Amino acid sequence: MQITTISLEAPYLLYLGDCPDMHHAKTGAGIAYWRPERCVGQMRLPNCPVDLNLPEMDVQAALDAGVRTVVVGVAPMGGQIPQHWIPQLKELASAGINIAAGLHSKLCDIAELVAAADTSGAELIDVRVPPEGIPVGDGRLRSGKRVLMVGTDCAVGKKYTALALHRELERRGIHATFRASGQTGIMIAGEGVPIDAVVADFISGAAEVLSPDNIDDHWDVIEGQGSLLNPSYSGVSLGLLHGSQPNAIILCHDVARKEIDESGGHYPIPELDEVIDDALRLARLTRSECFCAGVSVNTSSLSDFDRDNYLSKLQSELGLPCVDAVATGMSPIASFLLKYAS
Amino acid sequence: MQITTISLEAPYLLYLGDCPDMHHAKTGAGIAYWRPERCVGQMRLPNCPVDLNLPEMDVQAALDAGVRTVVVGVAPMGGQIPQHWIPQLKELASAGINIAAGLHSKLCDIAELVAAADTSGAELIDVRVPPEGIPVGDGRLRSGKRVLMVGTDCAVGKKYTALALHRELERRGIHATFRASGQTGIMIAGEGVPIDAVVADFISGAAEVLSPDNIDDHWDVIEGQGSLLNPSYSGVSLGLLHGSQPNAIILCHDVARKEIDESGGHYPIPELDEVIDDALRLARLTRSECFCAGVSVNTSSLSDFDRDNYLSKLQSELGLPCVDAVATGMSPIASFLLKYAS
Repeated sequence: MQITTISLEAPYLLYLGDCPDMHHAKTGAGIAYWRPERCVGQMRLPNCPVDLNLPEMDVQAALDAGVRTVVVGVAPMGGQIPQHWIPQLKELASAGINIAAGLHSKLCDIAELVAAADTSGAELIDVRVPPEGIPVGDGRLRSGKRVLMVGTDCAVGKKYTALALHRELERRGIHATFRASGQTGIMIAGEGVPIDAVVADFISGAAEVLSPDNIDDHWDVIEGQGSLLNPSYSGVSLGLLHGSQPNAIILCHDVARKEIDESGGHYPIPELDEVIDDALRLARLTRSECFCAGVSVNTSSLSDFDRDNYLSKLQSELGLPCVDAVATGMSPIASFLLKYAS
Repeated sequence: MQITTISLEAPYLLYLGDCPDMHHAKTGAGIAYWRPERCVGQMRLPNCPVDLNLPEMDVQAALDAGVRTVVVGVAPMGGQIPQHWIPQLKELASAGINIAAGLHSKLCDIAELVAAADTSGAELIDVRVPPEGIPVGDGRLRSGKRVLMVGTDCAVGKKYTALALHRELERRGIHATFRASGQTGIMIAGEGVPIDAVVADFISGAAEVLSPDNIDDHWDVIEGQGSLLNPSYSGVSLGLLHGSQPNAIILCHDVARKEIDESGGHYPIPELDEVIDDALRLARLTRSECFCAGVSVNTSSLSDFDRDNYLSKLQSELGLPCVDAVATGMSPIASFLLKYAS
């Protein structure tokens, strides 16, 4: 059996419903920012204040534009699709357009959408539901090159860093693929595996499926999940690390984060050199030459002056390129990665 | 909501069907060996060659003996219950006796058993299916003491070591509970959580549920799963380690094992002092004073002479009690554990 990742067919129509603000439309905004070539339009309810500056479409316009998938790019209150969004989505499904979402409540539990999709042959794709047939990991060394984002905690910029590094590698003409391990990343990339949603025994197997054998000079840029330092999610992070068998890791950090977030134990974040050493020690089980290619820090809490001081001090301490992926860009890390990867 | 572990009500009737040999009846034999007080009888088909030396029972005898649960203590070919076992199991379920099994195919997928259980009010308990409502781990430090088995690989004697240590602690009048993290352990203990079957995001949460707050001088003796060194299952092992927040670990090893088993990568097992150091480094995230209380080695591949030499050499190298849980017993490790646990 060929094991496949979750896959979303482009072009996309981004669905916003009556999303109240940009914060709740982060997923849609991320897709439009990172993959503009996949997005041909947006669909909203009349009173929706959020605008992604894409052509406004109704169902006929979407069909005319060849839309294959409508992506629910918002996080509704309570994690479920409100009843008043259903008529538009049902009309799209009836017209044969696939629906993709990553909400807590599943599309395939909404009878009206299931019925419409069944009739037209459209697919309902819940990106939080792992594909079937993921095997137990086997630890076999795969061909091609891989770089994995490793965080000091959850939500410190791993996905942004990976996407920015991927963009920088492509700009330089390097063969590279962004590999999404979480729901938002999957909707951006159009494919991936939600690593944290697989059954525990299959974490590293899912990571192996996510970055298969490739040509020698191809880079998989793998989105990280959780953190080895976060007692809630460390198992996911280690399974992803071992299954990814990365040639290099990039440490992602938020300078404002002093303790692991939302944890009952008040776990301080150790010095970054220690975090890197520990992660490399673990990574070298499946890739003996793994090295750290740099540190990507969210410094949005600092002034420009403080950011420059912080990054240059860190860089001289660690002897590694240290950047803010948004403010200063991934170029130094891309150069270091390509220079030192054997 | 009160989160509960899987729970099996005693007394047990052990069901053997027509199991061909003792190897396939390991689970039943383990239950009878470790928990004789929970087992009042066995039920077999006429031609069954395996005998656990328990009173032979039919349904009426089981009812008379107050049997609450029939435990399928065998591993049938193909992981499913053969059709010709169903009539006996159905009769038991119809009589209100719960059925417990840990097979790949689920009891609740066998329509005849479901119907019989529905009518009588009996429960069908698949011990591979995690209980509902397991939360994300929160890393809060819990009261009571914990010791976790950590393996150099899968199937090196972690469950046996934990059960033997638990028995030794009870013999000394110490408050202790064996905490089962896998299917066979759950059937032996009568409760537990199948850690490797929960969704990845909930591994450490499941470990937290498994060993809840307790009185200060109570020991949870926690069965390990997988190995931090096994690239297929390391995520499960790390989530269990962090969620267990053990005061002490015991390293379990098989002297005949030179490489990680069933792995595509030929991963050598490192020196044991290195394995202990790495495991403690990780364990100290959630329990800063965690120490190693000894090494339990399966030396069944060695002669008595070679075993004694091996264990005494290892003991002087590591400065820790080194035993074979079967051949030499857990007493030295129990003494060390109780002496050095603060």
